[in-house]
Amino acid sequence: VNILLHYIKKMFDVKSKILDFHHPHQLLEGLDGFNLELSDHPESLEQLLVDCTDTLKYGVKTGHPRFFNQLSSGLDVVGLAGAWLTATANTNTFTYEIAPVFTIMETILLKKMYGIIGWGETEADGIFAPGGSISNLYGILVARYKQYPEIKRQGMTALPCCVLFVSEQGHYSVKKAAAILGIGTDNVIEVKCDERYVSNTFSKIYYCHYGHIPFCVTASAGSTVFGAFDPLHGYLTHILCICRQLGGGWGGLLLSRNHSHKLSGIERANSVTWNPHKLMGVPLQRSAILIRGKKGVMQPSCNKMHAAYLFQPDKLYNVDFDTGDKTIQRGRHVDVFKLWLMWKAKGTCGFEAQINQHMELAKYFCKVLKKKDNFKLVFDAEVKILLQRRLIEKGTAMISYQPCGDKVNFFRMVFSNPATRRADVDYLIDAIERLGKDL
Amino acid sequence: VNILLHYIKKMFDVKSKILDFHHPHQLLEGLDGFNLELSDHPESLEQLLVDCTDTLKYGVKTGHPRFFNQLSSGLDVVGLAGAWLTATANTNTFTYEIAPVFTIMETILLKKMYGIIGWGETEADGIFAPGGSISNLYGILVARYKQYPEIKRQGMTALPCCVLFVSEQGHYSVKKAAAILGIGTDNVIEVKCDERYVSNTFSKIYYCHYGHIPFCVTASAGSTVFGAFDPLHGYLTHILCICRQLGGGWGGLLLSRNHSHKLSGIERANSVTWNPHKLMGVPLQRSAILIRGKKGVMQPSCNKMHAAYLFQPDKLYNVDFDTGDKTIQRGRHVDVFKLWLMWKAKGTCGFEAQINQHMELAKYFCKVLKKKDNFKLVFDAEVKILLQRRLIEKGTAMISYQPCGDKVNFFRMVFSNPATRRADVDYLIDAIERLGKDL
Repeated sequence: VNILLHYIKKMFDVKSKILDFHHPHQLLEGLDGFNLELSDHPESLEQLLVDCTDTLKYGVKTGHPRFFNQLSSGLDVVGLAGAWLTATANTNTFTYEIAPVFTIMETILLKKMYGIIGWGETEADGIFAPGGSISNLYGILVARYKQYPEIKRQGMTALPCCVLFVSEQGHYSVKKAAAILGIGTDNVIEVKCDERYVSNTFSKIYYCHYGHIPFCVTASAGSTVFGAFDPLHGYLTHILCICRQLGGGWGGLLLSRNHSHKLSGIERANSVTWNPHKLMGVPLQRSAILIRGKKGVMQPSCNKMHAAYLFQPDKLYNVDFDTGDKTIQRGRHVDVFKLWLMWKAKGTCGFEAQINQHMELAKYFCKVLKKKDNFKLVFDAEVKILLQRRLIEKGTAMISYQPCGDKVNFFRMVFSNPATRRADVDYLIDAIERLGKDL
Repeated sequence: VNILLHYIKKMFDVKSKILDFHHPHQLLEGLDGFNLELSDHPESLEQLLVDCTDTLKYGVKTGHPRFFNQLSSGLDVVGLAGAWLTATANTNTFTYEIAPVFTIMETILLKKMYGIIGWGETEADGIFAPGGSISNLYGILVARYKQYPEIKRQGMTALPCCVLFVSEQGHYSVKKAAAILGIGTDNVIEVKCDERYVSNTFSKIYYCHYGHIPFCVTASAGSTVFGAFDPLHGYLTHILCICRQLGGGWGGLLLSRNHSHKLSGIERANSVTWNPHKLMGVPLQRSAILIRGKKGVMQPSCNKMHAAYLFQPDKLYNVDFDTGDKTIQRGRHVDVFKLWLMWKAKGTCGFEAQINQHMELAKYFCKVLKKKDNFKLVFDAEVKILLQRRLIEKGTAMISYQPCGDKVNFFRMVFSNPATRRADVDYLIDAIERLGKDL
C-alpha cells in the first residue's frame, strides 16, 4: 500500500516524468535487476515488493496532469478506492446470488443513465460491458436480432444481404463487429464526412445496391480522432423504421447543461454506447450499452442460452437480477462499483463541473493556439513523429498523433484528465515549440 | 485500506458468515441507512466510507473457506496486491506505448503457457481475454477464419453451411458464440456423452448432413458441471484437417505432474482456452486463448482493422508488442499483472502444490461421502433447493446446484479455494445432513 500511495503522490506532481522510456528488448532482457521471466521457485516477499516498485517505475503514469495520449486519462482517487474494494470483493456480476449489492448498483446506474438519455425505465434495457468496442458489438447484435430473430438459430445464411452504415470517422469497432458477427466488412457502407468531420449516414441509405437490406445506421457522438458529433437530431427522425446505434465515448457530456445540446436527439437512437471511463474519468474499464425498447430484449431473446448450472429459475430470490444470460461473455468483472462510488462522491453536479472544466480547457487551448503563428491544424508528418518521440523520451508530456485521409500525421489533443490545469496546457504548447525548433 | 484489510481478515475466519442474505427489493429500498440511490449532490467522506463498509457487509465473501459455489473462489493475497497495483496503474494493454511493462509480461506469460501445453514459442499466438466465454469465441472465430479467410470481408453468406461440434456437457458459450458469429445455434451439433459424462465428438463427424461442412470440433478439459475430461489424445489425432478448439477452466491442471495426464494430447489442439482464475486461484478475471500456428494468425489477418490513431506503424519502438489489433475489443483491462505476480510469488512449483491440495481435498470428500448412507449422487430436487436456501440464509457455506438431463437438481462440489481445509469439507457434509434432517 505504501508503494502504491507513494506512486500516486509522485504521479500528481507535474515535475515527475510520465515515463522512463525503454525499448521492448530492454525490458525482455531485464533492467537493473528487474527480471520479468518466471521461474519454478518462489521469490521472497522483499523481491516481490521490489518487482512491484519496478513495474510502476517503468510504466506510464496515465494520471499525470500532462498525459493527453488517450481518451481515458487521469486517476480519480475515489474511483481508485472503488477499484481496490472491487478487487477485494473478488466476485462476478452474473448472478444476484454471488453479487447482490453490485447487481442492484448496476440496475440503479442503468436507470439513472436511461433517464439522462431521455428514456423511461420500463422501456430500456442495458448492461455494463468491458469497453466501447464490445458495447458497439452488442448494439449491432441486438439491431440484427430485432430485425431478424431467426439469426440466432439459423445464422446469417438464412438472411438476405444485410448492410450497415458508418461514417468514415466512425469508430473502427463497427467494422470489427461486422467481421466478428459474420456480416462481413464489405457490407459496412462508409459514408463520407463533410469539412466539419461529421456525416449524415441516413442520406446514403437511398444509394443502397439492389438486394442490400439496411438494418443498422450508426452515428458518432464524439468521434475518436476529431471529437466530432454527427447531427443526431437532424437525421435520426427520418429513420424510425431502421435500427440506429449510437457509439460514443463522450456520453458524459449529457451531464453538462452547457454542452448536452451536442447530443440533442439521442433519445431517438435504439441503442447508445456510453463510456464513463472517458469524459467522466472512471478508472478503466467501464462502458455501458443501453438499448431502447421493452425490458428484456437482451435477456429472454437475443443472448439467452439457458445455462442450467447458473441461472436456475427456482432460486430463493427474484431472478430478474441475474444478468449473466444477457451477456456475450459469461463471467463479468465487477466494474460498476467505481462508477457508483464516484457518483456518490461527486453527485451529478460534480460530474457536470468536471466536464465543464475539460471543455473550458479545450477552449483555452484553442485560444492560445490561434495566437501562435507556428502552429497549424496539420503538421508535416516527419516532424510530428520525431516530436512525439522526443516528448516520450523526455517523458514530460504524452500526446497522441495519427494521419487521417489526405491529412498527414497531426497531434490529437484530448481533455479528459481531471488533474490537468491551464499551466499544463501552456507547458505542452511550449514543449512542442521548443522540441520542434531544430527539426 | 483499513476497511478492506478488516474485511479480508474477517473473511478468512470460518466462523464469520459468508453472506448476510437480503432480497433484491430490500436492497433497492435501502437497508439500515445503506441507500444505493444516486443524487445530484455529493456525499461526505464519512458517508462514503460507511457506503464501502456496507457494500462489503451485504456482499458475498467469495474467499471464505466454505465458499464452494463457483468454479472460481478463494482470495489470493498476492493476487489481490497485484489487482490493487493494476488499478493504480490504470492503463490499457492495447499498445506498448502506454503499457510497456504489462505487454511484455503478457508476452512472457503466454510463452510460458505455450511451453506447458507443448507448443514452441514461434508456432503459437495468444492473448488474455476477459473470460472463458470470450476466449472460446476467439477460438471459434479463428477456426472459421482459418478455413474461410473470405469470411472477414464477405460474411457468412459467402460460405457454405458450416457446422461445429460440442459435447452435450460442453460449455454453453460455444452455442452462444455460434449465435453471435452468425453461424446459428442450429449449426452446433451436440454430441451425447457416455456414463462418465465424456464425449467423443470426432466420431460424430461422419454423420454430418450432406452439404454441412464441419469446421470446428470442440472438447472440454474439465466440463463445467461434472468436471469431466473428454478423451483428448484419443480423438484429436484423427482430425488434423479440422480445426479443434479446446475449452476448459482447468488448464491449471497441466502444472501438476500427478494430474496433467488428464489433458494428454492437448498439444494437438489448434486452440486452447485456459482460465487461471479457476484452478490457479487468480483473482477475477483472467482467461487466456492460445492459438497454435505461426505467430500472427490473430493480428495481421483475423482481427486486424488498421486503426491509424492507435497502431501507427512508424512508432518509436518495435510495434510487434502492440496487441490491440489482435482483439475483438479495443481497450483491454490490465489483468495480466495479478497472474505474473502470483507466479513470481509461488513459482511453478507453488501452483503445483496448490492444485494437488485441491485434488486431495476432492479425494477426501469422496471418501467421506462413500461412508455415508444418506448421501447419493442425485438428491430429490425439492429437498435440494430448500437445503441450498437454508445454507444461503444461514450464510455459513455456499454450494451450487443444478439439474442435468434426466437428473434432477443435485449439488456440485468445487475445490478451487486455497483457504479450504478438511475441516471445512467435514462441516459442509454435516451442515447438509443437519439442515436436511426435517425435509
